Amino acid sequence: MSLEITPIEGIGAVAQGDEISDLLIEALGSYELENNDIVVVTHKIVSKAEGAVVVIEGDEEAFKRDIVESQSVSIVRRRGDLIIAETKHGFVCANAGVDRSNTAEGTMVLLPEDPDRSAHRIRVRLQNHYGVEVGVIVSDTFGRPFRRGLTDVAIGISGVTGVADLKGTVDWSGRELEVTEIAVADELAAAADLVMGKADGIPAAVIRGWIGPRADGKGRDLIRPVEEDLFR
Amino acid sequence: MSLEITPIEGIGAVAQGDEISDLLIEALGSYELENNDIVVVTHKIVSKAEGAVVVIEGDEEAFKRDIVESQSVSIVRRRGDLIIAETKHGFVCANAGVDRSNTAEGTMVLLPEDPDRSAHRIRVRLQNHYGVEVGVIVSDTFGRPFRRGLTDVAIGISGVTGVADLKGTVDWSGRELEVTEIAVADELAAAADLVMGKADGIPAAVIRGWIGPRADGKGRDLIRPVEEDLFR
Repeated sequence: MSLEITPIEGIGAVAQGDEISDLLIEALGSYELENNDIVVVTHKIVSKAEGAVVVIEGDEEAFKRDIVESQSVSIVRRRGDLIIAETKHGFVCANAGVDRSNTAEGTMVLLPEDPDRSAHRIRVRLQNHYGVEVGVIVSDTFGRPFRRGLTDVAIGISGVTGVADLKGTVDWSGRELEVTEIAVADELAAAADLVMGKADGIPAAVIRGWIGPRADGKGRDLIRPVEEDLFR
Repeated sequence: MSLEITPIEGIGAVAQGDEISDLLIEALGSYELENNDIVVVTHKIVSKAEGAVVVIEGDEEAFKRDIVESQSVSIVRRRGDLIIAETKHGFVCANAGVDRSNTAEGTMVLLPEDPDRSAHRIRVRLQNHYGVEVGVIVSDTFGRPFRRGLTDVAIGISGVTGVADLKGTVDWSGRELEVTEIAVADELAAAADLVMGKADGIPAAVIRGWIGPRADGKGRDLIRPVEEDLFR
């Protein structure tokens, strides 16, 4: 069976107080969500709706440095203007998630306060509207060591497994798999990004036909504990 | 427009000398490739077809350590049995890509000698057969710092962009994007993994409907040069 990934187009500018689920429903129009669909939403519109936005005061670069530090619990690496920080959620990412693209002039967008709660709220409201069970992922775009380019990852999830544990699963020769933990929520977020497009103003997508595990994960499931991390 | 990702089922055990393109064509059956389709193939069947397989001699763990070191140009981190190594291709990954899952008893599979060449060979033969332009990605499953779980990435590519460069692209407010390099080949590989399933013996998938950039990239486009890498 095929997987189908459909961009949700036509969501315009999002302002504080907007209900993301309502914007999605309106943009989806006649495309009705079905059981087991997964809706991926970039955090940026979630942050804006929740008011996780700051107005730049004074010198922009100095202000950004201050905001990044205020959003960080630790600085993992720093080179020039680039700061790789651990956020209060536990995510390790550039600038602690603070971003100036696709934001109103004179503002910066932060990560949502609690991306799992954001995902859960969207999910419950979508489920109530369509009368089906869906999953929701709130995504962000992260860099990574060793590899060039950025990919979208899951920072908040509801009704979706974060990491699928295949421990004990055997391959076709009866041997236990060596690779046992698959970051399915990150792969779903990356897949959704393929139809979104940062310059095109498409901040959400529907993934239909995914038959993977459906545990109710959390964004933190995807954070490698610092004591297991060879690179912190 | 939607993206459609279809698993290529029914590819059985692969042996040295097999032609991957022929196996794909047979497994695809009446599903004809179309212009701009992208075929993603896990490296494991490519390695087997190319004979990048070693027979275990003596103590398995000791043998594995030796093979991993022979496949590495440098050891990036080591903890217990886990070695994060840089391969001769430049990839940084666990055990230099040496893997014992889904291999014949008593053997280990290595990475292909030149995954781009492997991808190119498959692509040319698929294009000749179907009379259309396609892209091919050879994928592997890599871990990453900071985040739990593994995701599939592109180690060899042909007819697909590795990293899309959005430098100079502006967002809807006219501001230049902060995030300018998207690892599209890795996102395509991750998306394909969603329909593959390591335990299910589905080693390939077709991605249809992707309208992203089509430069003829290389696997090394996705390798962050060591001098730009804050974590090596």
